[in-house]
Amino acid sequence: MRILVLNGNTTEAITAACVAAARDAAAPATEIIGATPAFGPTVISTRAENAIAGHAILATLAEHAGGIEAAILAVSHDTALDAARQLMPCPVIGMTEAACLTACLVGGQFGVLTLGQARPYEELVARHGLAARCAAVVGLPLTPQQAIADPAAAEAQVLAATTAMAERCDSVVLAGAALAGLAARLQDRAAVPLLDGIACAVKLAEALAALHLPKPRTGSFAAPAGRTGLGLSPALAALLSGG
Amino acid sequence: MRILVLNGNTTEAITAACVAAARDAAAPATEIIGATPAFGPTVISTRAENAIAGHAILATLAEHAGGIEAAILAVSHDTALDAARQLMPCPVIGMTEAACLTACLVGGQFGVLTLGQARPYEELVARHGLAARCAAVVGLPLTPQQAIADPAAAEAQVLAATTAMAERCDSVVLAGAALAGLAARLQDRAAVPLLDGIACAVKLAEALAALHLPKPRTGSFAAPAGRTGLGLSPALAALLSGG
Amino acid sequence: MRILVLNGNTTEAITAACVAAARDAAAPATEIIGATPAFGPTVISTRAENAIAGHAILATLAEHAGGIEAAILAVSHDTALDAARQLMPCPVIGMTEAACLTACLVGGQFGVLTLGQARPYEELVARHGLAARCAAVVGLPLTPQQAIADPAAAEAQVLAATTAMAERCDSVVLAGAALAGLAARLQDRAAVPLLDGIACAVKLAEALAALHLPKPRTGSFAAPAGRTGLGLSPALAALLSGG
Amino acid sequence: MRILVLNGNTTEAITAACVAAARDAAAPATEIIGATPAFGPTVISTRAENAIAGHAILATLAEHAGGIEAAILAVSHDTALDAARQLMPCPVIGMTEAACLTACLVGGQFGVLTLGQARPYEELVARHGLAARCAAVVGLPLTPQQAIADPAAAEAQVLAATTAMAERCDSVVLAGAALAGLAARLQDRAAVPLLDGIACAVKLAEALAALHLPKPRTGSFAAPAGRTGLGLSPALAALLSGG
Amino acid sequence: MRILVLNGNTTEAITAACVAAARDAAAPATEIIGATPAFGPTVISTRAENAIAGHAILATLAEHAGGIEAAILAVSHDTALDAARQLMPCPVIGMTEAACLTACLVGGQFGVLTLGQARPYEELVARHGLAARCAAVVGLPLTPQQAIADPAAAEAQVLAATTAMAERCDSVVLAGAALAGLAARLQDRAAVPLLDGIACAVKLAEALAALHLPKPRTGSFAAPAGRTGLGLSPALAALLSGG
Amino acid sequence: MRILVLNGNTTEAITAACVAAARDAAAPATEIIGATPAFGPTVISTRAENAIAGHAILATLAEHAGGIEAAILAVSHDTALDAARQLMPCPVIGMTEAACLTACLVGGQFGVLTLGQARPYEELVARHGLAARCAAVVGLPLTPQQAIADPAAAEAQVLAATTAMAERCDSVVLAGAALAGLAARLQDRAAVPLLDGIACAVKLAEALAALHLPKPRTGSFAAPAGRTGLGLSPALAALLSGG
Repeated sequence: MRILVLNGNTTEAITAACVAAARDAAAPATEIIGATPAFGPTVISTRAENAIAGHAILATLAEHAGGIEAAILAVSHDTALDAARQLMPCPVIGMTEAACLTACLVGGQFGVLTLGQARPYEELVARHGLAARCAAVVGLPLTPQQAIADPAAAEAQVLAATTAMAERCDSVVLAGAALAGLAARLQDRAAVPLLDGIACAVKLAEALAALHLPKPRTGSFAAPAGRTGLGLSPALAALLSGG
Repeated sequence: MRILVLNGNTTEAITAACVAAARDAAAPATEIIGATPAFGPTVISTRAENAIAGHAILATLAEHAGGIEAAILAVSHDTALDAARQLMPCPVIGMTEAACLTACLVGGQFGVLTLGQARPYEELVARHGLAARCAAVVGLPLTPQQAIADPAAAEAQVLAATTAMAERCDSVVLAGAALAGLAARLQDRAAVPLLDGIACAVKLAEALAALHLPKPRTGSFAAPAGRTGLGLSPALAALLSGG
Repeated sequence: MRILVLNGNTTEAITAACVAAARDAAAPATEIIGATPAFGPTVISTRAENAIAGHAILATLAEHAGGIEAAILAVSHDTALDAARQLMPCPVIGMTEAACLTACLVGGQFGVLTLGQARPYEELVARHGLAARCAAVVGLPLTPQQAIADPAAAEAQVLAATTAMAERCDSVVLAGAALAGLAARLQDRAAVPLLDGIACAVKLAEALAALHLPKPRTGSFAAPAGRTGLGLSPALAALLSGG
Repeated sequence: MRILVLNGNTTEAITAACVAAARDAAAPATEIIGATPAFGPTVISTRAENAIAGHAILATLAEHAGGIEAAILAVSHDTALDAARQLMPCPVIGMTEAACLTACLVGGQFGVLTLGQARPYEELVARHGLAARCAAVVGLPLTPQQAIADPAAAEAQVLAATTAMAERCDSVVLAGAALAGLAARLQDRAAVPLLDGIACAVKLAEALAALHLPKPRTGSFAAPAGRTGLGLSPALAALLSGG
Repeated sequence: MRILVLNGNTTEAITAACVAAARDAAAPATEIIGATPAFGPTVISTRAENAIAGHAILATLAEHAGGIEAAILAVSHDTALDAARQLMPCPVIGMTEAACLTACLVGGQFGVLTLGQARPYEELVARHGLAARCAAVVGLPLTPQQAIADPAAAEAQVLAATTAMAERCDSVVLAGAALAGLAARLQDRAAVPLLDGIACAVKLAEALAALHLPKPRTGSFAAPAGRTGLGLSPALAALLSGG
Repeated sequence: MRILVLNGNTTEAITAACVAAARDAAAPATEIIGATPAFGPTVISTRAENAIAGHAILATLAEHAGGIEAAILAVSHDTALDAARQLMPCPVIGMTEAACLTACLVGGQFGVLTLGQARPYEELVARHGLAARCAAVVGLPLTPQQAIADPAAAEAQVLAATTAMAERCDSVVLAGAALAGLAARLQDRAAVPLLDGIACAVKLAEALAALHLPKPRTGSFAAPAGRTGLGLSPALAALLSGG
């Protein structure tokens, strides 16, 4: 099974890290392929960057249409997820969505922990229709730069936050590139299960691909057909036209 | 990996059918084990039967604690799911929950189709916190007996219902033992993906078990300890006491 | 009018205390009858215990079918309330439900105060469809044992909590056996009405029984008929069969 | 126990009918007193009339402050209910609120059936925070005049509507003066319990008054004090001033 | 364009202040007319006062029917807004509603800041169906008297509160007469846009009047016709009768 | 006052039509400027096209930053509205958002009528947090091509739909380019106010610009600063960098 891990920004190092994490989680028979957009934000953190990256993500996905069994959006905002699902002939899974749905399977209510603003993740959980399962979204007042500069201090803060969240959360999703890999490192000391977006996405992508479900033939997730545009990449234009 | 498929009622033939369906969906390395409660309703369809079966399900699960990597509740009402999660040391997945969460991964909004009353499934979807993702719950006015007596007519009715539901649903969960196996049979003719509870539960159980997440150490899903009772089975009493 | 006060656990002393409280609240013409299950948890506090007690409650209620005008579930989790309503030919009222609905009649928004975890009561209020009326659920970090060891300190803590809750609650439901009787004792010093589950349940049971409403003849609360099972008590089996 | 039955409009005949219905439902020891506002709409059916009647209801209630144990607003819109609760030293109950809360006690989800527009009752149920318990609000296309002109036809329509509503409602509240008395007359032929606002309000008023709960001392339902105005009736001005 | 600014209470000084603020915000071609009810509360702050003022507001509006292009309710509780809309032949806008809708246009989520109890404004936002856009309602523990006695201290408190609210609010509505005029004074030092009810209402009234939309001809906002009453002012009675 | 009317797709004829409609609605002192993206979908109707157009809209808006007092997104999906608000130094208003907020000002609940799928507009209303105000979203089974081929028949269908919607909607928003201009043409025969996105957007843009509100300095709508990317247009890159 070939699974694409698509970074949403243009930073190759992040792609490489996500691909490595995905390979750690994948079953032996799963092949992980990485991809990086040719244009767009260096890092996605604001509303405007998400909107720009949406185009870049679709253009990059389109290059792989037909060559993969599933795609994972390796961007914690699950940018353009529904558009990608409509566009692509295979399943597409968002990494934060995957962690949240895994949290549902674990049971009870989950929390989301990130660095910086909590609001974008509150909106994301609501957009996924999972607000009723989410007891808290917490944004630690820590920049990625600070987290990298003093990783031990950052780990201590994250662990303390998960302990506090465990008062009302039965599991905690760690969201954002800066927290990648922390779930495994902190799990033994944490009060509740910690969920890593890439790992969850890989397992759910394998599960979903194995079910061999077709695309819907009607509705807003049916494959586009006969759509045209100006200045689009050939692969993207081809998928929109349905050719 | 050993996965228990636990029928919630006392009818052995239903257990056998669920085990066979689970084996069809399982990965080669997965071992499916069946179980049937020693007491409780012949078939679960009413509120009172669900309450009785809850006890029977916990008592039966307790017999397998420690011997399995995951358990699937093969009862479309996901009876006593949260209690089972608290009680057991391994992941527990409900078959309708599994189909609904898979529908979330597929994207958009799902519908639930069953025979008989729609209400119990509306309540179930709400209990799972997924009402925002569910566009319709439809109960066909058809008894299981009628479905068995004229399967071709029943299939035609189910297919027609899924077509109508596709107006507002991007996928349809087929719920209830009477519809088991229909998803695969009707998929080619259906407008949207059809989701089978047992198949989804097997794939998600494999995914979840592979993530090796621990139980929460605090909160209402932490393992019971020091709890006592009267007239409980030894295995159930042992789990409650935490011994 | 004969009203059954059914303890949900197997501890006779709790039954006796609930019966005494019910008699204090009852009208002169009301006869209060107590009952204790023959099996189940010693005390109900976890999810697994609730599921087990559901069976025990139905089995015990079934012994009294036909001999009472109403039943009160004297367990603050309102365990198996909907199943009991479906099963029994008379009205069944949960003690926490009764206090919450009385709080609605009092006006504005209510709070729920308990010892220990708040979550189970948040879920209970939501299950009753009353979340829009509930401004706060507060769990005091106090065990029943501590409350018994130093009742004056416990009372002071409870009173302080109700004062704080009065900032956003127009009344406060005292939930859980450990707080039984406190409402009357603290009312004079409290900022808002304090609601006791047993007292409210008795008054509402008298009111409801006096209205002489029939059971629904259709839907998921209609009396069971033709349902069978294995290993059920004769009285429970008889009600399920509709005989 | 003295209970005031306050008609919200200025039509004495409606007051008399409500008082008679209340006496039918009351316990032997309950004294029912009727009252009619001295100004306001002849009949309340529009938004503007409700706003005007709110003032009239408060002015009329104020005349009885101190002389009654409870008041019932005999207007199916529960007009100015929260304001009346704040103003009066005794419990105040709305007739539709009472029927809806009784429906909650009966179990499951209720419907509301009325003549004319459904919307005002949808808003009322939402205002009471009970939308999660209400499965349907149905407005029959029938004027009160038509109902009076051909009562047998009206009864047949109402009965047919309750039968249809029973598909998704476990009980039905009959709302509006034109349906007064119908619940008792149609109950034997109805599929689910039918709830009459006046009867429910009387039983709940008796229950609530017997609990002897105090008014809140803080918050938006605490008694007014030190409030002044222009052109208010002496009794109303006195209550507002807290004198 | 003639716009009526109707104070909801009987204090002429408040009317004058609101009229002055409205004139500051109005376009050159807009004529602002002030009005004060002839009866009702001196100041509106409790539930009972709101109910009384509803009648007074309708009676006063009725005096101006036909002579204005739009009316603004210059009372921060938006008292009787829906009733006024039904009654009047021209658009009617509430000042807090106007600020909240302007906040929606500004984008993201808004907060509401007031002096005293937060609850009435929480209910108001919910009544307007805007709870999903409102991140916080904050009531400062400050009386209008204190705010007048030490305006600098009050301003500092309000500014500090808006800064704290900016953590989760993208704009802040200043609600209540005591905060009138503060938005403009504090804007330069505030972290997010501050919204003044009168200014927003004037701009939205101008916008709405310019669209020349008709009244609905059906439903609960259609003009009343054939409605009668007792003791109503001639102008109010005329509008209700539809004459 | 200069207001930009930005078409979201690349079809110049649609830009021209929107600009003309905007000029009809604008005040004399308002200057309307049109703009068309240099790349993107010919027409926006699917999820993928919306995602692509988001980038195109931001790139085009960026060309006008500093030269306009407000911008209107002349695309009925309000594509990338929040991103545009964050990016631009002036107010940005979506045409469907504007119609929905105007409907709120009109009072009661609104409906949305469009050609084709209703779902995207249901999601849009929910994304705007206005679902509580929206009673119905109706998609007529009519293509834009059919509407153009037989405009009289299309008008009759639209009018009939608004009449049916008036049963539960107090106003109706006409959404989608194919219905542009119809509101004015059908208003006299319609039962409720009909709302045109462009007209409402122009009036609200004028109102909002006149309030001279600043951008938030914190939160997810604060202007971007220090953000970089690859392959972005110079104007867009400049705004992201905050230069």
